[in-house]
Amino acid sequence: MSLIVQKYGGTSVANIERIQSVAKRAMTVHEQGHQVVVVVSAMAGETNRLLKLAHDLTDLPDERELDVLVATGEQVTIALLAIAIKQLGGKAVSYLGSQVKIVTDSSYGKARIKEVQGQNIFGDLKAGKIVIVAGFQGVDLGGNVTTLGRGGSDTTAVAVAAGLKADVCEIYTDVDGVYTTDPNVCANAKKIHRISYEEMLEMASTGAKVLQIRSVELAAKYKVPVHVRSSFNDHEGTLVTDEENTMEDILVSGVSYNKDEAKIAVRGVEDRPGVASRVFVEIAKANINVDMIVQNVSHDGKTDLTFTVPKGELKKAMHVVEKVAKEIGASHVEVSDQIAKVSIIGLGMRSHAGVAEKMFSALGQEGINIQMISTSEIKISVVIDQKYTELAVRILHEAFGLGK
Amino acid sequence: MSLIVQKYGGTSVANIERIQSVAKRAMTVHEQGHQVVVVVSAMAGETNRLLKLAHDLTDLPDERELDVLVATGEQVTIALLAIAIKQLGGKAVSYLGSQVKIVTDSSYGKARIKEVQGQNIFGDLKAGKIVIVAGFQGVDLGGNVTTLGRGGSDTTAVAVAAGLKADVCEIYTDVDGVYTTDPNVCANAKKIHRISYEEMLEMASTGAKVLQIRSVELAAKYKVPVHVRSSFNDHEGTLVTDEENTMEDILVSGVSYNKDEAKIAVRGVEDRPGVASRVFVEIAKANINVDMIVQNVSHDGKTDLTFTVPKGELKKAMHVVEKVAKEIGASHVEVSDQIAKVSIIGLGMRSHAGVAEKMFSALGQEGINIQMISTSEIKISVVIDQKYTELAVRILHEAFGLGK
Repeated sequence: MSLIVQKYGGTSVANIERIQSVAKRAMTVHEQGHQVVVVVSAMAGETNRLLKLAHDLTDLPDERELDVLVATGEQVTIALLAIAIKQLGGKAVSYLGSQVKIVTDSSYGKARIKEVQGQNIFGDLKAGKIVIVAGFQGVDLGGNVTTLGRGGSDTTAVAVAAGLKADVCEIYTDVDGVYTTDPNVCANAKKIHRISYEEMLEMASTGAKVLQIRSVELAAKYKVPVHVRSSFNDHEGTLVTDEENTMEDILVSGVSYNKDEAKIAVRGVEDRPGVASRVFVEIAKANINVDMIVQNVSHDGKTDLTFTVPKGELKKAMHVVEKVAKEIGASHVEVSDQIAKVSIIGLGMRSHAGVAEKMFSALGQEGINIQMISTSEIKISVVIDQKYTELAVRILHEAFGLGK
Repeated sequence: MSLIVQKYGGTSVANIERIQSVAKRAMTVHEQGHQVVVVVSAMAGETNRLLKLAHDLTDLPDERELDVLVATGEQVTIALLAIAIKQLGGKAVSYLGSQVKIVTDSSYGKARIKEVQGQNIFGDLKAGKIVIVAGFQGVDLGGNVTTLGRGGSDTTAVAVAAGLKADVCEIYTDVDGVYTTDPNVCANAKKIHRISYEEMLEMASTGAKVLQIRSVELAAKYKVPVHVRSSFNDHEGTLVTDEENTMEDILVSGVSYNKDEAKIAVRGVEDRPGVASRVFVEIAKANINVDMIVQNVSHDGKTDLTFTVPKGELKKAMHVVEKVAKEIGASHVEVSDQIAKVSIIGLGMRSHAGVAEKMFSALGQEGINIQMISTSEIKISVVIDQKYTELAVRILHEAFGLGK
C-alpha cells in the first residue's frame, strides 16, 4: 500500500463531468489499495472571474482581502469533488488550507509554506477516506487566509506529499508529461521519461510551464518523486526524481524558451567598484526580479551593463533605472522587449566539454546573433532576437539529437 | 460612541455598485464616530449557483461538503466589501465565521450557534477598522465549516451583536421595515415603527418573511434591539425591541399569511389515550415539523385528527401517516394542499377579550369558512381555503383598523 498524492489543475476540474472523472480516477487508485490525497485547483476560469470582481472595484485591491476572495475558488472544487466521490459510493472528506493546516508566512498573494501539519489527515486516510485538499491556499500564524500565487496548487501538492511522506506526488495536467521542448514548436519533441530535480528546475525557470518552480524546489528538498502526467489518459508521464548515474549520459535533456523578458542596457557606466551595484540595489528595492546580467569589458574606463527583467515589470524597472543612470553619470539607457531567451538543459554538461560551442555554432550557422549568454552547471541560456525563437529551438533540438 | 452591527442581505450586495453603496453607508456611520461591524450575505443568486453545481452532481449532496461549498458565497462578499471600503479610503478587515469565531453545533446546513467568541474583533474596532463578518457560516468544535440555513445571516448578525454587546443590530433589506401586512396584498399596509420581540416572533413564524425566526428568538433572549430598514434609502425602519407598556394599547399589530403548508386529516381514529400520539411520534421520528393540530370531539368513540405540515414535506409525511393510520385502524386519510393559514398578532390580545370573535365574524360575513384554529397568547391563526387568502388578509387588516 502506497500513500499517493494526486494534484489536478483547473482544466482537469473545469466542469461537473471532469470533476466526476477525477473522482473516478482517485477511486480507482484507492480501490487498488492505496491511500489517496487529492489536491485540486479552482475550476478553470474561476480565479479570473473572482479577480475581475475585485478589479471592478479597484486596480489595486487590498492583498489580504484578495486572498480571502480567490481562496474560495479551490474551496468550491474540494466540496464538489468530495460530493462526487460520495455520490459514486466512495468515502471522502475535504480540507481547506487552514484545516490541514498548511502554515505559511503572511506574504499575501505569494505566501511561502512554512509547515504542513496534517495530523488529522492520517486518521481520515486510515478510516478509508479519500482526503481532498484545497490547493493554492494556506493560513498564517495569525489565522489569516493566504494564497501561494499562480500555480500554487503544484506547490501545495508537493508540500503535502512531503509533509505526509507520500510515496509519490502525481501532478495531473493537460499534457502527457515533460517534453524535450514545446511540441507546438517542434513536431518531433519527445516525452522525457525520467528527469532530475535539477534539470526540471532549470527547465521550469527558463520557460517550460508544466511545473511551478517552487514545487520543484520543494520536491528536490524533500526528495518527493513527482510524476507529471495527463488527466485525460492513462499514459505514463514524466518522473521527476533524484539524479541517477545513467542520466549523465544524455548531454542535453531539453530546450526551453521564454519570450516574457525584456532587456535593459545602461551604456557608458564608469567602471569603478560599487557603481554597477547601485543599479541593482535600486532595482531590488523596487522588488523587481533581474534574470540575466552581462557586463562588457571596460573600454576607456567605461562599461555597459545589460540585464533582463520580466516584461510585466519593464515600466517599473525603467522608472528606477533612468533615475539611477542619471545619478551615476551613465551616457544613456537602451531597452528592447523584442528578445527571447533560449536555453538548453542537461546533467551531461557537467562531465562533457564542448556543449556551449556546439550550441553557439549551431545558432551561428543559421545567422542567429547571440546578444547575451548566461550559464549554470547544467544550463546554457542565450538571448536572441525574438523573431528567431522557434527557429533557434528547432535548430538546438535537432543539434542535440532530442527528436530521435 | 455606539457599537453598531449592520447586516446586509443578498440583494443589498448583488453587484459591485451595491457593494460600493454598502461600503459608503458603513463608512458614513463610522465617520459619525461609531464602531461598525458589518455582516453580509452572499451576493444575490450566488448561493443558488453553488447549489446548482452540487445538484448537477447528485440530488442528495453530502451535507458537510455542501456547507463547505455554499460558505464560499459569503466569503466572496466579505472580501469584496473590505476591498471596497479600503478603496474609498477607509480601514476594514474581513472575518470568516471560523475566524470570528462563531462556534456552532455540527448540524450541517442548519447549525445552531453555541457561542460567538469575537475577542479579536475588539482590537480591530479599536484600531478604527470596520469589521466585516461573513454571515450564514460558522465552525464546529472539530473545525468543520457549518452553515446556519437559509436566512442565517440575520442570525449571525444578531448573535454577533449579542456577543459583542452591540447597541443595535441594523438589518438592511429590500423593504422599508416590518409592515402591518404584506403591502403586495393590502395597498394600505402601514410600516410598524416599534414591535415587540414576541409579536415579531409570531409574525415571522406565521409567514412574514422580513426576519428569520431564529434571529428574533436570539434577539429576544439577549435583548438585542433590532432595527429593520431599507438599504436603498435612509428612512427609519421598524425597531424590534422589548415590550413597552404602550404597545398593549394596540389590539392587533399585524396580519400574516402562509400558503406553504398542507393539511392532513386522519379520520375515524379510536379515541383512546396514546392512539393519537403514535401518529405524531412517527412524524417526529421522520424529522417533519407539524404546525397546527386539531382533534375533533369524539363521536361514537371515534375522532378525527387534523394537522398541517410544510408542503415540501407532505410526501414524506404521507408516507409515514398512511402506514401509522393502518396500524391504528383509522378509517382513512385525507389530504389538501389548497389551504392557507392567516394569522393576526398583537400584544393587546392578552388584555382584551373578543379579538377571536371579531376575527371569526369578519371572515364569516364574507362567507369564508374556517377549517382549523390555533391560538397563542398573542396570536390567532386560522386555516382557510387558499383561494380566499388575499381576501381574508384584507378583511382582517380592515377589521382591526391597521390601514389607518
